[in-house]
Amino acid sequence: MATTIPLAQYIFSRLRQLNCYSIHGVPGDYTLRALDFLPASKIRWIGNANELCAGYAADGYARAAAVARFTTATGSRKALPPSVGALYTTYGVGELSAINAVAGSYAESTPVVHIVGTPSRKQWQTGACVHHSLSDGNLGVYAEMERRITCAQADLRCDDAQEAASIYDRVLGQCVRQSKPVYVNMPSDIVSSPVPAALLDRPLDLSIPANDAAEEDKVISTILARIQAAERPLIIADGLSYPFDFIAELNKIARVTSIPIMCYSAGKGVVDESLPSWRGPLTGPTELSTTSDLALLFGPLLSDTNTAAWSTIPDAGVSISFALDTVTIGDRIHKIRSKPLLEKLIDRLSSPQRSYSTPKQHTTNESARSPSPSSAISQDNFWARMSSWLKPHDTLLLANGTPLIGGRDMRLPTPTQVIASGIWCSIGQMLPAAQGVAAASRDLAIPGRTILFEGDGSFQVTCQSLSDIIWYRLDVTIFLVNNAGYAYERWLNGMDAEYNDVPGWRYADAARFFGAPDNSAEYPVLSRKVATWAELEDVLADEQIASDRGLKLIDIVMETDDVPSASRPGLKRAGEILRAS
Amino acid sequence: MATTIPLAQYIFSRLRQLNCYSIHGVPGDYTLRALDFLPASKIRWIGNANELCAGYAADGYARAAAVARFTTATGSRKALPPSVGALYTTYGVGELSAINAVAGSYAESTPVVHIVGTPSRKQWQTGACVHHSLSDGNLGVYAEMERRITCAQADLRCDDAQEAASIYDRVLGQCVRQSKPVYVNMPSDIVSSPVPAALLDRPLDLSIPANDAAEEDKVISTILARIQAAERPLIIADGLSYPFDFIAELNKIARVTSIPIMCYSAGKGVVDESLPSWRGPLTGPTELSTTSDLALLFGPLLSDTNTAAWSTIPDAGVSISFALDTVTIGDRIHKIRSKPLLEKLIDRLSSPQRSYSTPKQHTTNESARSPSPSSAISQDNFWARMSSWLKPHDTLLLANGTPLIGGRDMRLPTPTQVIASGIWCSIGQMLPAAQGVAAASRDLAIPGRTILFEGDGSFQVTCQSLSDIIWYRLDVTIFLVNNAGYAYERWLNGMDAEYNDVPGWRYADAARFFGAPDNSAEYPVLSRKVATWAELEDVLADEQIASDRGLKLIDIVMETDDVPSASRPGLKRAGEILRAS
Repeated sequence: MATTIPLAQYIFSRLRQLNCYSIHGVPGDYTLRALDFLPASKIRWIGNANELCAGYAADGYARAAAVARFTTATGSRKALPPSVGALYTTYGVGELSAINAVAGSYAESTPVVHIVGTPSRKQWQTGACVHHSLSDGNLGVYAEMERRITCAQADLRCDDAQEAASIYDRVLGQCVRQSKPVYVNMPSDIVSSPVPAALLDRPLDLSIPANDAAEEDKVISTILARIQAAERPLIIADGLSYPFDFIAELNKIARVTSIPIMCYSAGKGVVDESLPSWRGPLTGPTELSTTSDLALLFGPLLSDTNTAAWSTIPDAGVSISFALDTVTIGDRIHKIRSKPLLEKLIDRLSSPQRSYSTPKQHTTNESARSPSPSSAISQDNFWARMSSWLKPHDTLLLANGTPLIGGRDMRLPTPTQVIASGIWCSIGQMLPAAQGVAAASRDLAIPGRTILFEGDGSFQVTCQSLSDIIWYRLDVTIFLVNNAGYAYERWLNGMDAEYNDVPGWRYADAARFFGAPDNSAEYPVLSRKVATWAELEDVLADEQIASDRGLKLIDIVMETDDVPSASRPGLKRAGEILRAS
Repeated sequence: MATTIPLAQYIFSRLRQLNCYSIHGVPGDYTLRALDFLPASKIRWIGNANELCAGYAADGYARAAAVARFTTATGSRKALPPSVGALYTTYGVGELSAINAVAGSYAESTPVVHIVGTPSRKQWQTGACVHHSLSDGNLGVYAEMERRITCAQADLRCDDAQEAASIYDRVLGQCVRQSKPVYVNMPSDIVSSPVPAALLDRPLDLSIPANDAAEEDKVISTILARIQAAERPLIIADGLSYPFDFIAELNKIARVTSIPIMCYSAGKGVVDESLPSWRGPLTGPTELSTTSDLALLFGPLLSDTNTAAWSTIPDAGVSISFALDTVTIGDRIHKIRSKPLLEKLIDRLSSPQRSYSTPKQHTTNESARSPSPSSAISQDNFWARMSSWLKPHDTLLLANGTPLIGGRDMRLPTPTQVIASGIWCSIGQMLPAAQGVAAASRDLAIPGRTILFEGDGSFQVTCQSLSDIIWYRLDVTIFLVNNAGYAYERWLNGMDAEYNDVPGWRYADAARFFGAPDNSAEYPVLSRKVATWAELEDVLADEQIASDRGLKLIDIVMETDDVPSASRPGLKRAGEILRAS
């Protein structure tokens, strides 16, 4: 007799083959039984306080795991398999609570496997009035909803567990190939059904169809000719360069050609900012962006917030855009996988025939003068100061709001991974995402610190993630911009409106409230509140803050209406448009 | 010229006509402009920390407002209009974060108006790549998802604001008539378009088609005959008696006929428990429930959790079931609105021809002997003690888990509203719901205290609602059962499993952490942790705990594996079924 394992063990074990060693979630009766098979699967359970936090954490885990595959923006890389994040929730109430996070993974192309523990197959058949259903006998409502925000769905309501295993494997392949979340409906009564253990030795089919050689060659020739001819070319790095794994290629092209390079907000960290051709983030139209005769876009996510209300998007006529499985030249979309094309393109690139004399336009915020010790901490000074505090290999998470608009102007060491939302822009995402990044860092031995630049409004959305960080003893550093409200929104509308205020919490007490140990050598916790420049410098001088161990939460008081100066014209304009309608 | 008002002012003002004076939500750019019109609408904004909390709070508000229409279970009532709760979120990220709560309102028939601020009409037309979209140009994805958990949808993407107002009015009518949530898509650029102010004077059409008189009469005669003939009849009150407004009728029928009366868990509080015919909650099959020859079911919600795995549901052959717009006799469903039928039925009821000698089966938990002062607090003793602490007019919220199974056995004074989930059973629901109840109590001058029996696992899901309670200075009393995990789940599977543990928070510090004022006479805050019987009695003797003002949070330490004794056999059986599959 062949050795068998329970189906749930198979389901979980497969995740390890995709670089995923922890699964996030919240238990519920429909999931309890399967959870018993986690130890045998050697998958760590990270039980979150709620499912939204779990969903964001799984997304963060997947983003960190993806970048773990290369070690620097200069292109050397580990031979790791493609990676996913994983989420396990219960039917109805659980999966719906996580749905905002999963939809965000979809919008920003993060591969996350969302497994949902559902009623038994018999209950599905009879349309039983089970708890967490809508009481109308239609148990499939949530799966229908999830279908709209996942790229593939595995319905494991099979008579035969082995068939369920095959369905699951196919969907895992889609998750990796399309770099999008997938949905797995796992009925509670199939989880202990046996499948042959040997199935795990059958490699997952993650193969990608080869590009049409002739078309690929033609497109490469076109691109080379365009580069050759361009007088004012520009490279723009964007956020999907992370999941689509373009970072090495993009930096290599920039180095070889010396073409000036910029990034959209979500693409922060993609570019080696020590390159002489680095021109800084493209946060509003510049002379170069409006007059360039060739714009090479990598991993674009062309939302209003990511492109200064679309004002920084080059004309289609001059742009060549690299997405996962398309290359768009002008209006023509070529069904070509970008990554293999870029590898071949690099082989055929020659050093630049010309030097691009475009003036350096990058006004980094690190140049601000150091303020007096007793002065308040302004947005401009803060982000400038933090630029010089960062170290290579840090993973930075920029919460939506002022951290995103202040953080994108920081000068980064290489390599740095930045997690900044390009289109989803959901407040509350980044604290749980930081938990997921820290979990992945531990599982995959990713070097460097996990550093979150958080807002107070954001923190309040998903604050319980701090408890998850503490419970699992994860290493995270949090700088919390405490400006008593939604400062970003204030600039759009309602500068003094009550609806833009948030309650004043005692953030420096957060770690203790959420159960942090007192004076633990094993898991050191640093909590501080600072309101002046001297207090900030005092914290930054603390040797504990520089280390990559334990939890640090620095509550930084800033003015309610302060936003980085560079962002004010854009925010004002956006507010005018809003009020004009 | 006729006076005009902005459409958003119209939208919000209509809510006042439905007994709703506060709207819950979280701001976002697509909602900011409309929020400016709240003051003119005389609707209070309750800005929650996150949208899930806002959704649960709107549900709680609606439940409290519905019951505010009658003052006692003995039937005297205020002449208030039908009522709704209201929720306002932003496109995509906001609405999806609330979707679990809205689906819960749907499952448990709570009328909630969910307004979503969405992109401009032009952006909808062009399929613009706006933030919070999936980046694929299909902006309607979320509305499609919401369609599955709302009973009607108002799409306000009209050229003409007056048309938008009419569409909205029709959907409000559906919300009230069907007692289910509705969805309102309000594009951000239509909110200030003018509509005639006089439209607000046009009464909302909330009319309900009259029952077919002949059929109604026939059904009443059948019911009367069945009551007349029954030897072992039984009335079962269930949770939908609250939203369907059956409470007065049901108690009147019970009083006049002396038929023994019980309730399912979700129907707790519906029955006047001082009636001689009160037999207690029906938490498992009893001699009466299994041998009755007539079972009158009011507002049934026949889920597994509400009916001890369906074991307490009477045979169809003996049951007559009253839902919102159907009366089911045996297998025959009559399309009849129950409430007007019940009113006519009462007029034709005669006093009982016989006395129903069924022995009293109610073993209330209030009879337990008082334990020694130094002893730990057991589930059995705790719920018994709390029974005698309650007062008429209290609104009790029972969190899913041990509070629901312990609380349903409490002996209640009359009237008491109980909010206990019959099918949705989402942990984390009840703290935000308590916030909504407290807001409604203030707005509608509902007498009595808002008392939440919470679990620690539940509290962690939506803890930020405590901040909302504090920020808006709402009056809530919280008894938090601190047993370090999901005790209910432990009994189903994994008694000692790590996945059933939750981190230990310092709950008694919660109010301070979340910004409660120190020593405020205006908003008194009481936070205590108790682990022994003497400590519990000490808190209950505090005069502040008995008052209906301010916030009280009592952290009550109990054993991790303790559940009310009465529930153990059922939980064990459920666990066996789970593990057998």
